[in-house]
Amino acid sequence: MNAHAGSFSIRTRGKGTYEITSQVEGVVRESGVHTGLVTVFIRHTSASLIIYENADRSARVDLENYFDRLVPEDADYFVHTAEGPDDMPSHIRMVLTRSSETIPIDHGRMQLGAWQGIFVFEHRHAPHTRSVAVTVIGQV
Amino acid sequence: MNAHAGSFSIRTRGKGTYEITSQVEGVVRESGVHTGLVTVFIRHTSASLIIYENADRSARVDLENYFDRLVPEDADYFVHTAEGPDDMPSHIRMVLTRSSETIPIDHGRMQLGAWQGIFVFEHRHAPHTRSVAVTVIGQV
Amino acid sequence: MNAHAGSFSIRTRGKGTYEITSQVEGVVRESGVHTGLVTVFIRHTSASLIIYENADRSARVDLENYFDRLVPEDADYFVHTAEGPDDMPSHIRMVLTRSSETIPIDHGRMQLGAWQGIFVFEHRHAPHTRSVAVTVIGQV
Repeated sequence: MNAHAGSFSIRTRGKGTYEITSQVEGVVRESGVHTGLVTVFIRHTSASLIIYENADRSARVDLENYFDRLVPEDADYFVHTAEGPDDMPSHIRMVLTRSSETIPIDHGRMQLGAWQGIFVFEHRHAPHTRSVAVTVIGQV
Repeated sequence: MNAHAGSFSIRTRGKGTYEITSQVEGVVRESGVHTGLVTVFIRHTSASLIIYENADRSARVDLENYFDRLVPEDADYFVHTAEGPDDMPSHIRMVLTRSSETIPIDHGRMQLGAWQGIFVFEHRHAPHTRSVAVTVIGQV
Repeated sequence: MNAHAGSFSIRTRGKGTYEITSQVEGVVRESGVHTGLVTVFIRHTSASLIIYENADRSARVDLENYFDRLVPEDADYFVHTAEGPDDMPSHIRMVLTRSSETIPIDHGRMQLGAWQGIFVFEHRHAPHTRSVAVTVIGQV
């Protein structure tokens, strides 16, 4: 059994989804784990993680538009607005999606389905550098 | 320490919630793990996982109705509609719920609360076969 | 490698968010794990977990108000109302947030970001005692 701690950063161009499947795969590979699991964790409160379909870009556009409607930037009841109108919606969108995902590993590979990718969901308008911690645990 | 990879499939009858607690318990039992954790992962982008109350069926009906309202099928701003009107809402409902859940194990049993069950949440109208990967890690 | 099972209870004063970062840190410390991960799991269906910004109280007030609007207590289509008007919204709010979170550990510390705290999100009006299971796995 082995526990391997890795991490990487990703530079976003502002609001949107950014696939990180290959970066996570890289950490899994360097761990040498054959059977176990990998935890992906984003170390921020205005960006989050999703597992999402990675084949058709239009599915991501619709998702992003849906979240703009679900958590509007101009809600008049927000009081935490010192950092701008996209700050509070960012926190809420993060709560409605994920901070951590854990994915089984078998035969040295993540058991993602055919259409699943791992994405950082950036909720701020401005570009940000986002730090992702990845831990792999299992039988080498 | 041991890492055990299991999996099972479940045939859904279309939209709704389907309890899989006993299937997950089966994998935990066959792993022989006494202290550790189990990760449940659904390998799809139009079905998801929830941990939910498993006593009263009406709580599940209300949940399903709520999600029909929260993510309507007839939203006129969806462009990813090639697979039908239930495709894009399925992806969003998946993002709003879970792809993975990790549950502590102690004395060989999942530490679920008295009213908690693990469910597959099917978001498509048509019946589907859904694949669930289960990994157990811990002290035998 | 080691697997350590811990738990604690928290008494809520009714609806709201309650930080539990230091209790989880305590279990991580007593496990002696240097590299690995910790899973936090709430054993209830009307309270949930979130990872959220822990600096400014106003961000939590806005979040709580947002959830009151997103899942209203007076929705006329709920049928599961035997336990009162806050019961069904509690279950839905739980589904929209988290039952489990898994956080990487490196050098004996959780890899939380600078502004991240772990919170119990109590969804019932009445005070409740909430049970949280914590499992730490990794290299000592």
